[in-house]
Amino acid sequence: MRLSWSRSPDAQIMKIAILGTGEVGSHLGSSLVRLGHEVRMGSRDAGNPKAEEWAKGAGPGATHGTFAEAASYGEVVFNCTAGAVSLEALRMAGSENLAGKVLVDVSNPLDFSKGMPPTLTVCNTDSVGEQIQRAFPGSRVVKALNTMRHELMTNPGLVPGEHDAFVCGNDAAAKAEVTRMLKEWFGWESVIDVGDIGGARGLEMVLPLWLRLSQTYGWAPFNFRIVRQRAPVGEGTEARGEASRAQP
Amino acid sequence: MRLSWSRSPDAQIMKIAILGTGEVGSHLGSSLVRLGHEVRMGSRDAGNPKAEEWAKGAGPGATHGTFAEAASYGEVVFNCTAGAVSLEALRMAGSENLAGKVLVDVSNPLDFSKGMPPTLTVCNTDSVGEQIQRAFPGSRVVKALNTMRHELMTNPGLVPGEHDAFVCGNDAAAKAEVTRMLKEWFGWESVIDVGDIGGARGLEMVLPLWLRLSQTYGWAPFNFRIVRQRAPVGEGTEARGEASRAQP
Repeated sequence: MRLSWSRSPDAQIMKIAILGTGEVGSHLGSSLVRLGHEVRMGSRDAGNPKAEEWAKGAGPGATHGTFAEAASYGEVVFNCTAGAVSLEALRMAGSENLAGKVLVDVSNPLDFSKGMPPTLTVCNTDSVGEQIQRAFPGSRVVKALNTMRHELMTNPGLVPGEHDAFVCGNDAAAKAEVTRMLKEWFGWESVIDVGDIGGARGLEMVLPLWLRLSQTYGWAPFNFRIVRQRAPVGEGTEARGEASRAQP
Repeated sequence: MRLSWSRSPDAQIMKIAILGTGEVGSHLGSSLVRLGHEVRMGSRDAGNPKAEEWAKGAGPGATHGTFAEAASYGEVVFNCTAGAVSLEALRMAGSENLAGKVLVDVSNPLDFSKGMPPTLTVCNTDSVGEQIQRAFPGSRVVKALNTMRHELMTNPGLVPGEHDAFVCGNDAAAKAEVTRMLKEWFGWESVIDVGDIGGARGLEMVLPLWLRLSQTYGWAPFNFRIVRQRAPVGEGTEARGEASRAQP
């Protein structure tokens, strides 16, 4: 596998918390360690065997602990737990350990308990991203990277040509920081800001289409691209109200 | 506005029903009349002023009537009513008038009654497309064109470069027929089949993201493109089961 990221000599080393020991957390954590960051993987139990194995294999800078130990360690926190249990995991992490920090919510509220295809545990009138921001008002939640396979998150070059990552959140500086991480750390060229944390509804609700496309394309990586005609300068503001009422 | 469609001399003239008098129905109906088809717009009341006005303005071949009069007239039926009332409109159209026909469901279940942003009246465990197929098992329902503004439906050239229309439905021949219409009538080059009518869930649930992007981009037309690395021949089948279990 070709890896598009590489560590820039002047890149700032950060302490990063990864909450969750699944494919997403392991992959993101390992990629961040390879970039030179100090990553602590958090899980429910300090002795979680998957976290132990990950920390052994991921290289220098990789440690593990409880959700709280990881969250208190990280300057930035990635929520890579399953969306259905994210609030519980973050409560175990502790609001005092998340306060003031950028909290990147990568989760999806997929419910496999009723068989395939999975449904969403929350959608339409709410989202995991919004639930987290409400439960942790002192944190700066940014929904990001949940619309793609984990391999693609850290290596957009796996899919040829132009395609997009999305972010949303209430804190503009936090979104700018996450956008910078996606671009500088992972090589994303296009990161689309879809507004406040309410946009997490839209980003989580693309999962059913994403799953259909996965069935169609198999393992071949794919991603969404928003293709558009750029509006002439000055037309954006006037059109905004009209477009928000539009129905396709 | 540049119009990409033009009538081919050997194109087959069809009798087409458009159910609904809104922007989508009026635009699709007018485009189909200009392509030489005979289009009847159906609405709740035979004397609907919007339908009358449309029929007068759309040119030769444009007529209007009740939902039932339109449905019985059409060899193919486009449901352009609001998703929240589509089942009611189709019941008025009459299952006997829809039986055996390709029924293109363009609707979206947007609920504006609770303010902006709209929510969906059905999603996650069901969709309008599935509801219609269940209620009218003798019809060949194909979900299509609901993921874009109406101007783009009939003129993909409004957005530069490659981008996609989606279809889904239980009847492969019906999907092939709708795909042919999209390509030959409107000039679509890429029409992605996302499987059986259950895929309507995914296609309808992209609306919240679509609405966010509309707010971001204003009137500038945009569309989704699925960008992917094509899998080597022979890998598709093997990968399918794995990918269907994958979680992004």
